[in-house]
Amino acid sequence: MEGTQPKPACSVSHSPAYRVGIDLGGTNIAVGVVDENYHIAAKHSIPTGAQRPYQEIVEDMKKAVKTALQIAGVSPGECCSVGIGSPGICDSETGTVVYSNNLGWKDVPLTADLQKWINLPCRLSNDANCAALGEVAAGAAKGCKNAVLITLGTGVGGGVVLDGKIFSGCHSAGAELGHTVIVKDGELCTCGRHGCLEAYASATGLIRQTKRAAQQHPESLIWKLCGGDPERISGRTPFEAERQGDETGRQVVDAYLSYLSEGVVDFVNIFRPECVILGGGICNEGARLLDPINAYVCHYCFGGELVEAPRVIRAALGNDAGIIGAALL
Amino acid sequence: MEGTQPKPACSVSHSPAYRVGIDLGGTNIAVGVVDENYHIAAKHSIPTGAQRPYQEIVEDMKKAVKTALQIAGVSPGECCSVGIGSPGICDSETGTVVYSNNLGWKDVPLTADLQKWINLPCRLSNDANCAALGEVAAGAAKGCKNAVLITLGTGVGGGVVLDGKIFSGCHSAGAELGHTVIVKDGELCTCGRHGCLEAYASATGLIRQTKRAAQQHPESLIWKLCGGDPERISGRTPFEAERQGDETGRQVVDAYLSYLSEGVVDFVNIFRPECVILGGGICNEGARLLDPINAYVCHYCFGGELVEAPRVIRAALGNDAGIIGAALL
Repeated sequence: MEGTQPKPACSVSHSPAYRVGIDLGGTNIAVGVVDENYHIAAKHSIPTGAQRPYQEIVEDMKKAVKTALQIAGVSPGECCSVGIGSPGICDSETGTVVYSNNLGWKDVPLTADLQKWINLPCRLSNDANCAALGEVAAGAAKGCKNAVLITLGTGVGGGVVLDGKIFSGCHSAGAELGHTVIVKDGELCTCGRHGCLEAYASATGLIRQTKRAAQQHPESLIWKLCGGDPERISGRTPFEAERQGDETGRQVVDAYLSYLSEGVVDFVNIFRPECVILGGGICNEGARLLDPINAYVCHYCFGGELVEAPRVIRAALGNDAGIIGAALL
Repeated sequence: MEGTQPKPACSVSHSPAYRVGIDLGGTNIAVGVVDENYHIAAKHSIPTGAQRPYQEIVEDMKKAVKTALQIAGVSPGECCSVGIGSPGICDSETGTVVYSNNLGWKDVPLTADLQKWINLPCRLSNDANCAALGEVAAGAAKGCKNAVLITLGTGVGGGVVLDGKIFSGCHSAGAELGHTVIVKDGELCTCGRHGCLEAYASATGLIRQTKRAAQQHPESLIWKLCGGDPERISGRTPFEAERQGDETGRQVVDAYLSYLSEGVVDFVNIFRPECVILGGGICNEGARLLDPINAYVCHYCFGGELVEAPRVIRAALGNDAGIIGAALL
């Protein structure tokens, strides 16, 4: 479990201690130089080129770190550590990316390879874990020590912070919150099970539900919004249709929120955090998303009126959360 | 979070340090004097009389502690602490039973009342949490630091041990593993939601499923086993019917195991513990219960063949787990 090790003291005295955070995504490698106040002093981003061999991507990660440090005017000697948030199963103890579907990686010794190059302690965790840590340190959950982050994107990611530290279970293979069944024998999930939260509450799941509803409702505004091409339906489409008075849009949004709410209450009953943070593009829908979920949590979380229900809030840092969280590993 | 406080050193030198564990149930108050090797040196049990006023029950708890200490030949001065496992929502930080349906208690300052009497540090946690801690210290999960216990009884209880300590979330209101939805809009649960694991995987849920199957299958052996009276159907009935070759019994058991397996895989994906411990009378079914669940976990837990799947094992200590775990709070 990362975070349980003491953070090494910065090797440079009379100088601010910086940390380098790398948010390694399927699309971009985003590097930030993060100061002691969790501000990103400089940031640099380059395309991942995810289909390339591992070694090429690592070389580009090094270049991106170098460039970000140059922009910040910070030398490696002024940095305490380098942290990487990667998609997939990341073993934080060994620094290995055990498996990443997005990158096509299996058992890749990422921190060892970077550490040889930069001679700083390098640490690794899953990207959703890093985002959760970033939001707790400097974002929506600032001041909380216990928080659950759910990212609503292509999949549903989970990041859990307990007592200020990332919790990810043995071999860092836990906190897979998207892969919990809410509809037994329901939709097929990418993990091979049926009915996982991810299959319903991801943007992918929402788009699927919107397409189906549109097929059943030729009169729906959804058709106009996507120009008659279902492939142009996005996670925003049903919300926009509803805003324009479309009944089908309203039904899709209501159903989507009821799935997501079940998942949120499950995680409240399991972790009882101080807050639940929702991240991902869908969160731009703001109150239309958060208000019904908060009402559902208040009504249905275990302990009802006896114990105050946690707040469900929107992630505040966007992509920076992953960089800041990675830096703090 | 209990267990995060350092354990006080025993006040008596040159003497073994004992701890008192109280398993407060809806039926019995069971008290054990537990030695440094997690063995119960002496045990005493009296009926709870759960319908009586709080003060009467507390007086009987004191009497039971006194008797157990007398049987053990141990004085309070030779003890380090008193721990109580209680049903319901127990706030470990304040030592308050926030709510217990079984006991009809609300905001009861249990540890404060006992501490005044015995002048030893008194601690409190939920009974399932205590059972999990007991199994980790001295039972089925001995040697593990991370384990999840699921008790299959009238309800479905959850106890989570992370890094050797009970995890129960803010206000100790988490780890309510039974109250996570696996069948959206399914059976009504005691918590007010629909489709919780508890509604399917508890003994109560199994009995309900068995009754329904029997109604649909007048030819089933279940009718013979319950003497024609559905009220005599127990959690053992469908397993016994299956053993005698009954097809309806087999179907009920298979369906029950599929619900339970979904819950177990969910908790594996969330906590990724070293093992999952199943407790409660249904576990007497042994391999018929454990083998299909283990097969399901191996096949469906996140990370598949990349990360070793945790074992699903049977609780080993029975009711003693709650006493030993309470003593170790």
